Amino acid sequence: MNKIITISRQYGSGGREIGKKLAEALGVPFYDNELITMAAKKSGYTEEIFKNAEQQPTGSLLYSLSMMGTANALAFELPLGDKLFIIQSNIIKEVAAKGGCVIVGRCADYVLKDNPNCVKVYIHADLPARIERAKNVYGVDDNKIEDRIQKFDKKRASYYNYYTNMKWGVASNYHLTVNSSVLGIEKTAELLKEYVERL
Amino acid sequence: MNKIITISRQYGSGGREIGKKLAEALGVPFYDNELITMAAKKSGYTEEIFKNAEQQPTGSLLYSLSMMGTANALAFELPLGDKLFIIQSNIIKEVAAKGGCVIVGRCADYVLKDNPNCVKVYIHADLPARIERAKNVYGVDDNKIEDRIQKFDKKRASYYNYYTNMKWGVASNYHLTVNSSVLGIEKTAELLKEYVERL
Repeated sequence: MNKIITISRQYGSGGREIGKKLAEALGVPFYDNELITMAAKKSGYTEEIFKNAEQQPTGSLLYSLSMMGTANALAFELPLGDKLFIIQSNIIKEVAAKGGCVIVGRCADYVLKDNPNCVKVYIHADLPARIERAKNVYGVDDNKIEDRIQKFDKKRASYYNYYTNMKWGVASNYHLTVNSSVLGIEKTAELLKEYVERL
Repeated sequence: MNKIITISRQYGSGGREIGKKLAEALGVPFYDNELITMAAKKSGYTEEIFKNAEQQPTGSLLYSLSMMGTANALAFELPLGDKLFIIQSNIIKEVAAKGGCVIVGRCADYVLKDNPNCVKVYIHADLPARIERAKNVYGVDDNKIEDRIQKFDKKRASYYNYYTNMKWGVASNYHLTVNSSVLGIEKTAELLKEYVERL
C-alpha cells in the first residue's frame, strides 16, 4: 500500500481515531503527535513550541516576539511559526517518501499536493456527536463546550488558510469528505479502507 | 431501500450521470429534469421558466419584472423565483415521501434537511476532467470553456446560498463528498451504492 492518506478533521469528529484505525487496518505507519516529536528532535526546538504553533494560526512576527522576545526573534529572518511549518513540512515529505502511511492534521494534504500517491480526506461530524466526544473521550467538562469546539475549529481553519491559501473544509480541496456521525468511528474507518483499496 | 439520496454537483463533475447510475443500481427512481416537468405541469408555469429560475440565482423582484413585465409581477406577493422554489420544494417532499430515490440538484438536501432518510452527497472533480467532460459529453466547444465552468459553478453556488443560507460545497453540509476524477463515473457510483447500503 503506497498511498499517503492525509486526514484533516473537525475537533470532536474522531478524525484522529479514524486515522489510527485506518493505519492499523492498512498496516502502515500513523503520524500525528509522533510527527511533532520527530520534528522537534531534529530542529532543536521543544515539542511544546510546535504544539503551540498549531494553536497560533497567524504565524506572525508578533507571535514570535511574544514567544521569544524581540532580540531573539530578530535574529531570524522568518517568523517562528513559518519556520516551524517548514520544518514540519520537510518531515512530512520525508515520511511520505518512505511509503504508505496515514498523517493527521498539519496541512499534510497541502504539503503533499504534488505527490500523486496522496489521498486527501476530511472528517467532520454533527455537533451533538462532537459534544459527546469532547465530554466522553477527551474528558472536557465545562458548560462552554460548544464555544470550545467552535474555537478549535476556527484555529484549525485559520492555521490551514494561512499556510495553504485554501479554505479549510471546502469539499473540492479533498478527494473524500465524510460525516463520521453517520456510520460511527469504526465503520467510517472501514469505509476509508475500502476507498483506499479501490484506488 | 428507503434512502433519499440528494446529489449536489459541480458543473462537469458527472454528478448527474453518477446519480442516474446509482438510482439504477439501487432500483429506485431518479429525479432531475423530470422533477422540473412535474413541477411545471402542476403549477401551470412553463418548463422553460423553471429552467431559467435555476440560472437566475437572485430570485429577485427585478428578475420577475424582466420575465413577466411589471403589471404581472406585481400581481404576485412573492418574487417569481421564490414561488418556483416553493413549488419545486413541495414536489421534492412529495417524491421523497413515496420512498427511496435519487434527486440531483435543486437544493434537495436543504429541502429534505429534516428527513432522517436523506443522504446528502456532493460531487466535484478536477478542472481538467471537467473541461474534458464539457467538451466530450456536453459538446461544449469554445475557447472560453474554463470561464463557462466557473460561471456555472457561481450560479449554482449563488442559487444554493440564496435559498438555503448555507455555503454550497462546504464539506460539513453533506454526509459524503467525492472527487469523481479519482475513481471515474462508474466506480464513484459503485462507491456511493456501497456507502448507502452500509447505512
